[in-house]
Amino acid sequence: MEIAVIGVGHTAFGELWTDSLLDLIVRAQSEALADAGLEPNQIDEIFVANMCAPQLSGQAHLGALAADMLGVSAAGCTIEAACASGSFAVRSAIRSILSGESTVVMVTGAEKLMDSSVELVAESFMSASVRDVEHAKGATFPSLFALVARLYLEKYKITREQLAQVSIKNHAHGAKNPLAHFQREITLEDFTLAPMIADPLTLLDCSPVSDGAASVLLSSVDFAKKLQRPFVRIIACEAAMDCMNIAERENIINLKATTLAAKKAFARAGISHKDINVLEVHDAFSPAELMALEALGFFREGQAAAATVEGITASTGSLPVNVSGGLKAKGHPVGATGIAQIVELTKQLRGDAGIRQLNNPRYALAHNMGGIGTSVVVTILTQSS
Amino acid sequence: MEIAVIGVGHTAFGELWTDSLLDLIVRAQSEALADAGLEPNQIDEIFVANMCAPQLSGQAHLGALAADMLGVSAAGCTIEAACASGSFAVRSAIRSILSGESTVVMVTGAEKLMDSSVELVAESFMSASVRDVEHAKGATFPSLFALVARLYLEKYKITREQLAQVSIKNHAHGAKNPLAHFQREITLEDFTLAPMIADPLTLLDCSPVSDGAASVLLSSVDFAKKLQRPFVRIIACEAAMDCMNIAERENIINLKATTLAAKKAFARAGISHKDINVLEVHDAFSPAELMALEALGFFREGQAAAATVEGITASTGSLPVNVSGGLKAKGHPVGATGIAQIVELTKQLRGDAGIRQLNNPRYALAHNMGGIGTSVVVTILTQSS
Repeated sequence: MEIAVIGVGHTAFGELWTDSLLDLIVRAQSEALADAGLEPNQIDEIFVANMCAPQLSGQAHLGALAADMLGVSAAGCTIEAACASGSFAVRSAIRSILSGESTVVMVTGAEKLMDSSVELVAESFMSASVRDVEHAKGATFPSLFALVARLYLEKYKITREQLAQVSIKNHAHGAKNPLAHFQREITLEDFTLAPMIADPLTLLDCSPVSDGAASVLLSSVDFAKKLQRPFVRIIACEAAMDCMNIAERENIINLKATTLAAKKAFARAGISHKDINVLEVHDAFSPAELMALEALGFFREGQAAAATVEGITASTGSLPVNVSGGLKAKGHPVGATGIAQIVELTKQLRGDAGIRQLNNPRYALAHNMGGIGTSVVVTILTQSS
Repeated sequence: MEIAVIGVGHTAFGELWTDSLLDLIVRAQSEALADAGLEPNQIDEIFVANMCAPQLSGQAHLGALAADMLGVSAAGCTIEAACASGSFAVRSAIRSILSGESTVVMVTGAEKLMDSSVELVAESFMSASVRDVEHAKGATFPSLFALVARLYLEKYKITREQLAQVSIKNHAHGAKNPLAHFQREITLEDFTLAPMIADPLTLLDCSPVSDGAASVLLSSVDFAKKLQRPFVRIIACEAAMDCMNIAERENIINLKATTLAAKKAFARAGISHKDINVLEVHDAFSPAELMALEALGFFREGQAAAATVEGITASTGSLPVNVSGGLKAKGHPVGATGIAQIVELTKQLRGDAGIRQLNNPRYALAHNMGGIGTSVVVTILTQSS
């Protein structure tokens, strides 16, 4: 697959009280254009990833607004696949380029959640579940994931102390990311004070509600080469789905769609797990990172917790996971999340990730998940040559 | 462009009180599969076009639900571009097939509006405008379009009687469509009783609020030929955008994006206006049909009304427009609208449009518009050979 990431943009993630949704879109897009050295009129097509703006801000039609903000007549539409919206937008952009219909595509993910009450945000998130079944029973996303987490933790006898290491690691990573929602470390002691959200998930096991936007400019590799600037290549971007209602699944702790998408992605990329040097994984809740790493095939079932405790997945370990801080510390502005993963991995592969730069990673993998493992995209990137 | 429409599905449009959004999606998808003679597991990818479900039904993540309803793990996401959502979904499906990433793609548009109050529906529609500007001023879509319509009608001295012929024609067409929301004719006399919605638009100038779903199954032409069933070809599907806030436009009665998309589509198809035998045009409001026909290049500015009075755009005329009944009489379930246009034109080109079948049309054009002419897609179809 011959797709290049030629520019990236990423606003701060967090409680951005003074920025509107459009402010965030404009900032991320402008930064990506400047990074690529392109003008707006060189964009052939725009995809905007967003989930909550229609519900929380009464604003749909964001593809047209994103084009408007750039002052171009290039076609724009919104892509939504719950928390995987960003990756599905990247996937559509890739298809536009591979089809020859577009050469340069802007992909922007954005979310503005702070204007709304916690109740409205929680309800909006539940629109990613089966409304008439799961929401109607009073479930929230943390409570649904808690059902999965409890079974997973009990089955593999993972302790509270082991699980805490996921968030402790990601907060340590986030402390080195100037764009992260939380730029401070946490300790095991902090967990004793953390309020329970949905047993066994405490506040420190849950990713936050964040505002933010991220953009990637994608192009054909031929176009990228002509720019004579650093770029990275996407060599696989594969999706798979699981049934949405978790009560209907054979095994709720088996992230089937993640496994399927990963198999397809590795086959497409023609590389193996040992080639991957850095991962961004969808840690909406701390056990999700462990389960994802296992479903992706990096650890055997039930083994990721011990690996985390050993430091294997830390930025100083052999398989750094969520060096950006992950959803937990970097933040989780839903539509922006999948795109922000690509931004981080692009920076790591280009060697310009600042104080969190890893030692010359060659292959990188992003895992983005919508719903409780329902819609999954696995993307593999590598250096330009 | 080598894209085939190999199957179509279309629920009744109207006040479907006993059907849920998922019921409608299931029915349209099943019908399209049966029409193509395919099984769900032959689908490589799914796009769902929807605008209002997150706001009105608290249900997002429809791509995953559509896949779920089919029992497949094929990737699915939602595409939204206001009232042009359906055509943008078709456009994405085309790109997936042209890229070689997918062979068979299901495109489903669906909307469930009847569960909600008129106020909520009107507010949801306004999310397709610039929320903080146009909605904040208290505008609704009929009131915004009324500004445009008034200027257009005054400039070209189009009378109430002339304008009425658009809706009278489309209702006459709808009377022959068993799936139409309104299957009855209206007369000029009815306009004297029609309540004013936003001067100069009466109730009979406005498309209704409808429930409904429509699906098209697209594939490569090679795949379609192997099926040995009737299919039609899409030979152009081009989009263009205008700035969203109509107050910022140079000329609000100039549907710039429509003109641009049409130019691109005709160039792509390699045919001219005189080759087109049938059109489905976005008549959300009756003057929109006239303005669109002119912006598309079928009539000179200000001439479409006289042509309508002459009967040129009737099913018995030389350029039949909205033989399905159009948005006015067939109904306008937002996300389904653009896809329903393709369903109607496919039936006309295949020769199985029942009592409204035209005499062997060879080329067909669909015009789908989101916002006040903001996001526009023009699609050209032709017979399989």
